[in-house]
Amino acid sequence: RHRHPTVEMLDLSFLPFCAFLGGLGFVCVAFVSAWCQHWRGGFAWDGSVKMFNWHPVLMVTGMVVLYGTASLVYRLPPAWRGPKFPWKVLHGVLALAAFVLAVLGLVAVFRFHNDHGTPNMYSLHSWVGLVTVLLFSCQWVAGFSSFLLPWAPAWLRALYKPIHVFFGSTILMLSVASCVSGINEKLFFSLKNGTMEYKLLPAEAVFANTLGLLILLFGVLVLGALARPSWKRPDADFPDSRQVPAPLWGQAR
Amino acid sequence: RHRHPTVEMLDLSFLPFCAFLGGLGFVCVAFVSAWCQHWRGGFAWDGSVKMFNWHPVLMVTGMVVLYGTASLVYRLPPAWRGPKFPWKVLHGVLALAAFVLAVLGLVAVFRFHNDHGTPNMYSLHSWVGLVTVLLFSCQWVAGFSSFLLPWAPAWLRALYKPIHVFFGSTILMLSVASCVSGINEKLFFSLKNGTMEYKLLPAEAVFANTLGLLILLFGVLVLGALARPSWKRPDADFPDSRQVPAPLWGQAR
Repeated sequence: RHRHPTVEMLDLSFLPFCAFLGGLGFVCVAFVSAWCQHWRGGFAWDGSVKMFNWHPVLMVTGMVVLYGTASLVYRLPPAWRGPKFPWKVLHGVLALAAFVLAVLGLVAVFRFHNDHGTPNMYSLHSWVGLVTVLLFSCQWVAGFSSFLLPWAPAWLRALYKPIHVFFGSTILMLSVASCVSGINEKLFFSLKNGTMEYKLLPAEAVFANTLGLLILLFGVLVLGALARPSWKRPDADFPDSRQVPAPLWGQAR
Repeated sequence: RHRHPTVEMLDLSFLPFCAFLGGLGFVCVAFVSAWCQHWRGGFAWDGSVKMFNWHPVLMVTGMVVLYGTASLVYRLPPAWRGPKFPWKVLHGVLALAAFVLAVLGLVAVFRFHNDHGTPNMYSLHSWVGLVTVLLFSCQWVAGFSSFLLPWAPAWLRALYKPIHVFFGSTILMLSVASCVSGINEKLFFSLKNGTMEYKLLPAEAVFANTLGLLILLFGVLVLGALARPSWKRPDADFPDSRQVPAPLWGQAR
């Protein structure tokens, strides 16, 4: 099909993009860990505020970075060739790892609240976050049942696939909104006394605000990569899943 | 092209979806207005907290509901036929209206802060929000210059169009993340004394948390509609903007 020559110039290669995204994901995890270690007292699994600190680290690592990685598995060049099954297993395993981290992240904050007599589930952050994790659990179970169990019928896979794709992007969007509201909330809690007030924008606030922007950038780039038609895997089972004619990977475009 | 018959069952009609989305957008504006009127003291343009109350109302109305409406103009069935120019004008005018409301919303919060000696631009919410509005202003100017000015060359339009589409969805995602973090932050500010504490989940908190979830739902539905290949306008200038063969609107599928 005809493409305007100038549009060709915009074609990015997936691999350099992927390398950048991997670096950005690493920086997000490093930033959230450094924030909790350097400014918030570090980590422990004892019900104290050091236990709470696991919450942001596990949520960012699981629900943003690992989740984003899992979502992009089918865009990897080797996944375009050969049988799809091993890539499905990789996608499912990465998503399961993300889910386990998210559950541990929830345990960290619930136990911290319970040990301090703080109510759970009152803030909008907590509502959005819980909706996100619940949707993710449904997504994983439905994906496993439909795409990995060998006896799932073709009509079910065909019916569910666009729904799985839609909720895949939606859950990442919700994760990112949860992270932004959570970082914002935590900074208001932590920086409310004297010279360290959030309003005065101490170094910690600049650092954690920057973390929030980096998480947003990571989420936007993953969602953009997922939406890019020319990066979608050509799929023999579902011709519509591939929306433009497939150039071979690595072919000059 | 072949489509699995079960996939056909999932095909939604745009118009019922649109009616639902319009109702949801109306409910979002009604909720944010009712919150500020009933629980936060109502509205005035005087530098007081009543002036601040314009901030959430104008932001939700402008950056979410009107912005979402503007983004969906080309999905309207009448826009699929005849010249595109009038629809471009409508898209641009709705986006400009959204932008004007957003700027007024920023004026409301900056003036409130300045009149109370509160610093501006320290929270992550404010950073994300300002990035969103700045990106939106660039998006509007670049869209106007490329698509509405008659002398913009075809190569520029072809080059810029996918960028405009990508940033269109990105800005809505950032808007929604700004709203969620802003509502969360405002509830922590407003409900910190005695029996009304946010932690105790008074009626206001339930109401405003629900508003946050409704805004998220609105954003997710708009982004989903924008991404749906079968709802995209067939475009003679840019064959690639249409990713599956176009059924005529209203034709049985």
